[in-house]
Parts: sequence; structure tokens; C-alpha cells
Amino acid sequence: MKKPSFITFEGPEGAGKTTILKIIAEKCEKEGIEVITTREPGGSVIAEKIRNVILDPEHTEMDARTEALLYAAARSQHFVEKIQPAISAGKIVLCDRFIDSSLAYQGVGRNLGIDAVYDINVFAIGNQMPDHTILFDLDPEVGLARINANKGREINRLDVEGLEFHRSVRAAYLQLADKYPERIHVIDAAKSVDEVVKNVWSILQTSM
Amino acid sequence: MKKPSFITFEGPEGAGKTTILKIIAEKCEKEGIEVITTREPGGSVIAEKIRNVILDPEHTEMDARTEALLYAAARSQHFVEKIQPAISAGKIVLCDRFIDSSLAYQGVGRNLGIDAVYDINVFAIGNQMPDHTILFDLDPEVGLARINANKGREINRLDVEGLEFHRSVRAAYLQLADKYPERIHVIDAAKSVDEVVKNVWSILQTSM
Repeated sequence: MKKPSFITFEGPEGAGKTTILKIIAEKCEKEGIEVITTREPGGSVIAEKIRNVILDPEHTEMDARTEALLYAAARSQHFVEKIQPAISAGKIVLCDRFIDSSLAYQGVGRNLGIDAVYDINVFAIGNQMPDHTILFDLDPEVGLARINANKGREINRLDVEGLEFHRSVRAAYLQLADKYPERIHVIDAAKSVDEVVKNVWSILQTSM
Repeated sequence: MKKPSFITFEGPEGAGKTTILKIIAEKCEKEGIEVITTREPGGSVIAEKIRNVILDPEHTEMDARTEALLYAAARSQHFVEKIQPAISAGKIVLCDRFIDSSLAYQGVGRNLGIDAVYDINVFAIGNQMPDHTILFDLDPEVGLARINANKGREINRLDVEGLEFHRSVRAAYLQLADKYPERIHVIDAAKSVDEVVKNVWSILQTSM
């Protein structure tokens, strides 16, 4: 990898994004590449507080528009405080979820429309789209089964949505990959961790 | 007052909005008019939690865009949970601050642009603008002096901004009054409480 890049990992819960991101970061470090890892919707004190309001399982009465605006608010703060300074310092940024999560979960899953959600996110981050996005594609039934098998994992308000919701989110992600073929790279997240790491690494090597 | 209406009170801190709003609500009740009073950015459990994130004096590193998105998020939730149901039930809603606060404080005070802030608020509340807005116009020096004299009052992150900030907010409010002359009614908040109440009551009587 030659130049500083802003790389996001997208896909459903249970697809292995967080695990693979950590392994890729370690591989970068071994090669002497300066990298920071971060996650959405957090990564700064204010953004983490916003995240707590969004994901509180007791907030069942949260309006879909409120949810979308809170994600955009957390993203704006996270971007200004953490991502932008790292990019400016010439580092590779690996970020667990970013704008495509909002487009898929709020734009399609919550029926707010991809364009409307895109617009509030452009307000939040300007035209600072990721350079590359790895989309972990997975059958929602497999993802939900993985989540349920992992007893130690924190369950949030979005995880408890039904299968139909998660199917529409998957379709939305694939639609985004069609729309942005140069930025979004789809990988099969049903494969083993070793195979997925190999695929992601290969994509990052050839893309940059 | 004949028909259900959504009425907002706008202007700087120290202009007497909250005091007058309470008196007007009491006058409505005496006349047998069903009224609810509420305030921005709050009025529901989730919106109050968002308010706490926005106004925490320790959050000095908060980005202006994050602030604007948080206000819009709180407004969306407040509107859906509290204002919309009251309007649907045929009540008069008196709301302490609403969209014009964001247009003035974030759009102009924070230099984000009135149009950009308007757009994220249209995402938040659709086209549900207030039926009438009472703008409490006051010299910022007078408002700040009133705030400083009231020792028991909670000081928030916006109050501690300098005089220039508050001057630009006042100019923005007057600009909005020019733009929406049928909706926004400017009153002189330097007058006595009795006189201001009389003015506001007269506006509400003739407007509805």
C-alpha cells in the first residue's frame, strides 16, 4: 500500500468485520505501515455519548429520522476529531462502519430513502467519502445465528430487528456496491477468517 | 384564538421568552383554551438526553455540524413524541425555541449557512413549520446583562459565546423575520413583562 487511505469495513453484524479489521491492522503494522483503527458511531468522547443514546435498548420509541440524524452527528464529530487528523498525518485509517451503514440501515432498512440520508451525511462530512470500502456480504440468517451463538456479545437496538429488516439492509448494501463499483469491494463473508483476510488483503494491495 | 396552532417563541437568552410563555399559557387556560407548553431541545426522554450532550459545558471540542445535527435530531424526536400528538388532539402548542433557533445560532452564528441548516431540519420535521413565531428582539448586551444578574440560572455552552456571536444571531433572527413576515412577529423584548405579554397576546388574538 503506497498512499494514505481512508478504508471502511461495512456489512451486517456477525459478518466478522471487527475481527478481520484487527487482523488487517496487525498485518499493516508488520509491514511498517502507519495505521489507526476506529469504529462507528464512536471514536471520540462526544461521539461515544451520542452512540449511547442511539443504541440504548430502552429507546424503543426512537423515531427513524432522529436515529439517522444522530448517526450523522456522531459521524461528523468522529470524522473531525479522529479520522481527518489521521489522514492529514499520512496514516491509513481502518474504520468499522461509516456512511454506507446509514445509507443501508436508515435509508433502506428504515425507509427514509438513500438520497435523503446521503444529503444529511454530506452536511456531516462534506464530500469526504472513503477511498475504499470492503463490504462483508453475508446471508442475514447466517449473521444472526453467529450473533446468537456469541453469548458475550452486546446486543443493540438494531440487532433485534427481524429477518426482513436485515434482508432489506443486505439488498441495500449490494445496491450501493453496484452504484459505487470503484469504491465498494464485495467479499464473501461466509468463508473462513483466513480466506476473508486473504481476500481483503489482496483487494487493498491491488487498489492502492 | 379559534383554531389549533403551533406557536414558537424565539430570541436570545435573557429576552424573557420562558417567563412570557408561562404567562401566555395561563391566560389561554383561563379562557378555556387547551394548551401545552414545551421547550427545545427537549420535551421527551430521548430529546432531553440529546440536549444533555449538546449543552454540556465540557464539550468544548464539539464541531458546529455535530451541534446542528444534534439539535435537528432532538427536534425530530420532540416533534414526533410531543408536538405532533398535541396538534392532532386540537391543542394549542407553545414551544420555547424551534427551527429558527437553529437557523440563527447554527446557520449564522456558527457560519454553516441558513439554507444548509434549513435542509437538515426539513429532513427532521418535514414541512411542519410553526403557524406563528414570536421573536423576542433584544440588544445582546441587555440580554447578557440579564443572564449575568440571574445567579440561579444554568449557564450553557452557547451563553458563554462572545458578544459578536450574539450580535450575529440577532441580525439573523431579524433577517428571518424579513423572509417570513407572515409567520414571524417581532416584539420589543426590552419593554416590561406586562407590556410584552400585552403585545404577544394581541398578536396571537389577531393572527388566529
